Amino acid sequence: MSDSIQQLIQRLQQFADARDWGQFHSPKNLASALIVEAGELLEHFQWMSESQSRELNEEKKQQVAYEMADVLLYLIQLSSALNIDLLTAAKKKMALNEQKYPVDLAKGNSRKYSEN
Amino acid sequence: MSDSIQQLIQRLQQFADARDWGQFHSPKNLASALIVEAGELLEHFQWMSESQSRELNEEKKQQVAYEMADVLLYLIQLSSALNIDLLTAAKKKMALNEQKYPVDLAKGNSRKYSEN
Amino acid sequence: MSDSIQQLIQRLQQFADARDWGQFHSPKNLASALIVEAGELLEHFQWMSESQSRELNEEKKQQVAYEMADVLLYLIQLSSALNIDLLTAAKKKMALNEQKYPVDLAKGNSRKYSEN
Amino acid sequence: MSDSIQQLIQRLQQFADARDWGQFHSPKNLASALIVEAGELLEHFQWMSESQSRELNEEKKQQVAYEMADVLLYLIQLSSALNIDLLTAAKKKMALNEQKYPVDLAKGNSRKYSEN
Repeated sequence: MSDSIQQLIQRLQQFADARDWGQFHSPKNLASALIVEAGELLEHFQWMSESQSRELNEEKKQQVAYEMADVLLYLIQLSSALNIDLLTAAKKKMALNEQKYPVDLAKGNSRKYSEN
Repeated sequence: MSDSIQQLIQRLQQFADARDWGQFHSPKNLASALIVEAGELLEHFQWMSESQSRELNEEKKQQVAYEMADVLLYLIQLSSALNIDLLTAAKKKMALNEQKYPVDLAKGNSRKYSEN
Repeated sequence: MSDSIQQLIQRLQQFADARDWGQFHSPKNLASALIVEAGELLEHFQWMSESQSRELNEEKKQQVAYEMADVLLYLIQLSSALNIDLLTAAKKKMALNEQKYPVDLAKGNSRKYSEN
Repeated sequence: MSDSIQQLIQRLQQFADARDWGQFHSPKNLASALIVEAGELLEHFQWMSESQSRELNEEKKQQVAYEMADVLLYLIQLSSALNIDLLTAAKKKMALNEQKYPVDLAKGNSRKYSEN
């Protein structure tokens, strides 16, 4: 786990401890909170065209950055609650994906994705 | 941005480039894919009690770790597509949260959360 | 399709037509809008215990009712855009579920659910 | 509440009662299950262009119809658990939307939506 994420884990732990919020932070609740934030993130894009979504103005980009931060913060709290090393899991999952979608079969084919 | 995340960004970029998947990876689509994975994550917990969710067996924990990895990988790809520094955004958001929920008012009170 | 839902379909169509919003109402966008509303619905429950969620006060219940209405309204618009008869689909799906989860095997067993 | 939906309510109730599943069907859990199904619905569209999503083949359309059915079935079970009349709530919400987005201001403007 990188230093930066390790620092966030500790800061989030202190934040929750100081407010006595550990009682609400069951993995079930954290996974709910995470998807609620993912919905707030998607809300920014829901009526945009794909090309509009590639060209956000600075104000919108800052709003989107904070929604992404919320998702990350719950993801880190969930990994902490379950004692899961998030970056190690991500690296393993990438290795699986590289096997699952060989370059020669997957090239330019979004269908490979939707059958994920 | 930490080294580990920087490495994941590059590896995800190479992975998508090799498969010519950049065309599908508009921010709009990545935000959709992210919430779809967040749904797969929540699915593991939906019928559990909160206390059950605190005591996963190893098999379930591994499955959950991979779903969390999927969320992180799309979050990183989205940050890359929008040129957003995810860890910096997370630190800024934490500072805002610390102001928004002063310890003396928020202690033991989940309602502060739900009015977020 | 019941009369009430048929009336809602027509009213939603007129509402969107009058505002020239059909251009934004691709099935892809409507499915995004639907899950965004489902997130707003879940937000009300995310820090509650299960037993608290069974005992909402009137104000909260009204808020929840409107979030549910939003989900239904997007579901109806999506069915309309795709020319899908929602109630017929629901009846067929129920018949499939009754076969998939025989009473003697599924009784009192939430695991049947999570393998859905 | 229309006859068709009333029939679905009763059939869902019998289905859950026969399997002793009422214990898992807290509003909190039903709202989670609903968004999980909304994610499965969105998954079908996530890599499609908007125009592709308007032209599904019959096989895909049937799959989408069943995911929509799942969303509706949880929505109905949630309304039943909370004793909320879903169609009445939907009609009230439509009336609010008609006030909130006057035709002359909202015409052809998706921004009205995203500020919802």
